[in-house]
Amino acid sequence: MSETTTTDLYEVTMAMSYLREGMSAPATFSLFVRDLPPGRGFLVSAGLEPALDYLSRFRVSTDDVRDFAAVLHRPPAELSGLLGLRFDGVVRAIPEGHLVFAGEPLLEVTAPLPQAQLVETYLLGQICHQTAVASKAARCVIAAQGRPLVDFSLRRDHGPQAGLQAARLSAMVGFTATSNVAAATRYGIPAAGTMAHSYIECFPSEEDAFRAFARTHPGPLTFLVDTYDTERGVATAGRVLADLRRGPGCAIRLDSGDLGELAHRSRRLLDAAGLTDVHIIASGGLDEYSVAELVRTRAPIDVFAVGTRVGVAADAPYLDAAYKLVQYDGRPVMKLSSAKVTAPAPKQVFRGPGCADVIGLIDEQPPDGTVPLLRTVMRDGRRTGPPDALADARSRFEADLADLPQAARLIHRPESPVPTGSPRLEALTSEVRDRLEATSAVPGDRSR
Amino acid sequence: MSETTTTDLYEVTMAMSYLREGMSAPATFSLFVRDLPPGRGFLVSAGLEPALDYLSRFRVSTDDVRDFAAVLHRPPAELSGLLGLRFDGVVRAIPEGHLVFAGEPLLEVTAPLPQAQLVETYLLGQICHQTAVASKAARCVIAAQGRPLVDFSLRRDHGPQAGLQAARLSAMVGFTATSNVAAATRYGIPAAGTMAHSYIECFPSEEDAFRAFARTHPGPLTFLVDTYDTERGVATAGRVLADLRRGPGCAIRLDSGDLGELAHRSRRLLDAAGLTDVHIIASGGLDEYSVAELVRTRAPIDVFAVGTRVGVAADAPYLDAAYKLVQYDGRPVMKLSSAKVTAPAPKQVFRGPGCADVIGLIDEQPPDGTVPLLRTVMRDGRRTGPPDALADARSRFEADLADLPQAARLIHRPESPVPTGSPRLEALTSEVRDRLEATSAVPGDRSR
Repeated sequence: MSETTTTDLYEVTMAMSYLREGMSAPATFSLFVRDLPPGRGFLVSAGLEPALDYLSRFRVSTDDVRDFAAVLHRPPAELSGLLGLRFDGVVRAIPEGHLVFAGEPLLEVTAPLPQAQLVETYLLGQICHQTAVASKAARCVIAAQGRPLVDFSLRRDHGPQAGLQAARLSAMVGFTATSNVAAATRYGIPAAGTMAHSYIECFPSEEDAFRAFARTHPGPLTFLVDTYDTERGVATAGRVLADLRRGPGCAIRLDSGDLGELAHRSRRLLDAAGLTDVHIIASGGLDEYSVAELVRTRAPIDVFAVGTRVGVAADAPYLDAAYKLVQYDGRPVMKLSSAKVTAPAPKQVFRGPGCADVIGLIDEQPPDGTVPLLRTVMRDGRRTGPPDALADARSRFEADLADLPQAARLIHRPESPVPTGSPRLEALTSEVRDRLEATSAVPGDRSR
Repeated sequence: MSETTTTDLYEVTMAMSYLREGMSAPATFSLFVRDLPPGRGFLVSAGLEPALDYLSRFRVSTDDVRDFAAVLHRPPAELSGLLGLRFDGVVRAIPEGHLVFAGEPLLEVTAPLPQAQLVETYLLGQICHQTAVASKAARCVIAAQGRPLVDFSLRRDHGPQAGLQAARLSAMVGFTATSNVAAATRYGIPAAGTMAHSYIECFPSEEDAFRAFARTHPGPLTFLVDTYDTERGVATAGRVLADLRRGPGCAIRLDSGDLGELAHRSRRLLDAAGLTDVHIIASGGLDEYSVAELVRTRAPIDVFAVGTRVGVAADAPYLDAAYKLVQYDGRPVMKLSSAKVTAPAPKQVFRGPGCADVIGLIDEQPPDGTVPLLRTVMRDGRRTGPPDALADARSRFEADLADLPQAARLIHRPESPVPTGSPRLEALTSEVRDRLEATSAVPGDRSR
């Protein structure tokens, strides 16, 4: 599968027309999330590094032209203008890990129009999906209040690529490990995982299973205790750990039932057996809502393994994001119809204290006490510096989170900060609207 | 990224232990969905073909062993038993396209225990995610009542692989085209798409844009009419189409606002201009709920383009699926704890009229009037026949859908048929439970 043909057909039909019409002047597209989903008080900027990798590699090959021509039922010669096209534009973006809010450009591309258009679908896909997952994972981190979290999502993610990304993004917001070996390898994330229920079932008894596992694995052990009867499982695990003198660093895992109640009972059993240093790991359908509830009720759970609902961002699996043309050939443009008015021109986001942000024009002076968030990360189609380290994204996330208003951090019914437009942006928006309504004889579509 | 390391670490730690203990007897794992999500009256079996491709290719390479060893902090020599391991087992499965219900095995793997375990994560990921998306797309097909549907999901899918799959699966249940060029190329699906709002905005006027597009594209045109003012856009599109004598096969696309109301107004405008053969395509946040409402209110929409919510199966982005050990070395096994009891032994699904299904044991005679759904699709790690054609999966889907009870087809509050267990399966389940409770001194965990 070619990354270049991983695109909506209309990017190609438009690019063909632009080339024919000689329209290769610089265009600026702005990628932003229109509105936050219900249940989100913030988003975490994510997906930029993979997006820059894509742009660095972007090229229309002979095979791509053949494929484009075939699906259009046109001779390849009619698409020859696309052959060899690369991305040699400028990208300004908010680095990964920063918190972002409705209407804030996460990324702006300025490039010759056909190029800037052709990369739309892929960029939207990367940024949208990854920002959705990172934001969900970040809420789990808030809910866990300092307890470690582990990514168990691979088996529910929407494919291997999505699984790699879920592991990377959850590490970016502070998860301590992942079950995904490929992701652990690629991103240097600690890997976690020991046994499934099936393992226990293959042995004559739970105790046989635990002892066999310990024979193969000399390091810290985690015994899954809920295959048959959870309390007996805990007792058996405790007996084996004590017998083998393997307590420190070891754990039991609870994967079903009332996790809070079982954690309390398990803790009492372990403590009574003198295994106060054996940890309790909980898994099974967890998300920020259930983690918050377990923390609130003081369940003695030391580590939360979250999977399914986080990897697919279950309650907000997509974002209402757009990649909108804001300037072409030096002329600010905007869409007027229905409720989807987009502000024109290249922009900057000025972060104020407490995430009180101002969205302004690219060349504005930062309002007092604010810092600009978008940086030039690519010029002439090349990164302006080395790829961003995951640890740096994590630092940005932690710093922004520390400054986020409490209302936006809430797990239930959070309220997001609402950025304001700068006076210059507002004035330009009015001006462009007036120009469009006058020159195109287009009345504002206020009825809908 | 290696497909083999795209796995949860625990598959590896378990396989290492099985090899050390000499436990390579045949194991049978059964992959099934425990319960249907709310809002689903059926699921569509999907993901089998990619899963078989994976199993055919499966091999533990030297690099894989190195990666496994590295994340486990063990010397590679300790994992040498895994090196070169391939999948040479048997797979029985319900072919893609069939409707399936809670508890029905979609796939059963029988292979030496370490192999059968190592492939768990990948198989679950493929089958879960694809069945979720195919089922959502199928509901759109029901809602559209014969009107064509087009897949526009790529920009919201969870990565390029997920995008390919969404296009394939939506074609499998009857969508007529996709915007995704890579998917159209790979699967031979017609490709669709013409222009975005940005295209219109790059020209001095909408009319200039439409005329420019027509200069490059000699085939049927679809003009996007809602960039500024929708009714003016329709009038302009109509004027250009009439002027260029390009009406037949052409269309306008509505992408925002009240699609039903705008479709009515647009139809009247087009008809008044004599453009009765110009179609109306609607897009923008559609799913089975909004499509059903537009059909119910007789909106004159000829084609629905659905994307975001279908590609991520927005209201049910994951399935509660499990890959459970049901037999090891000829001995039926099951898990007892909490509510997650699994029935033991290899199974067969017998499809009765009206999807009244019986889940029985593999060697049972089909009850009168039923047909078995699971077929042996892989033996000795090789497919038993050529890969399934997408058209065959589509035929199965159409045949099953025609036989599905009306209550399960409902868009709102559907009720799913509930399969029954055969007398022999029920008897074996009781017998194994009794044996486990006796031999392992494990009381039934009925308290939770």
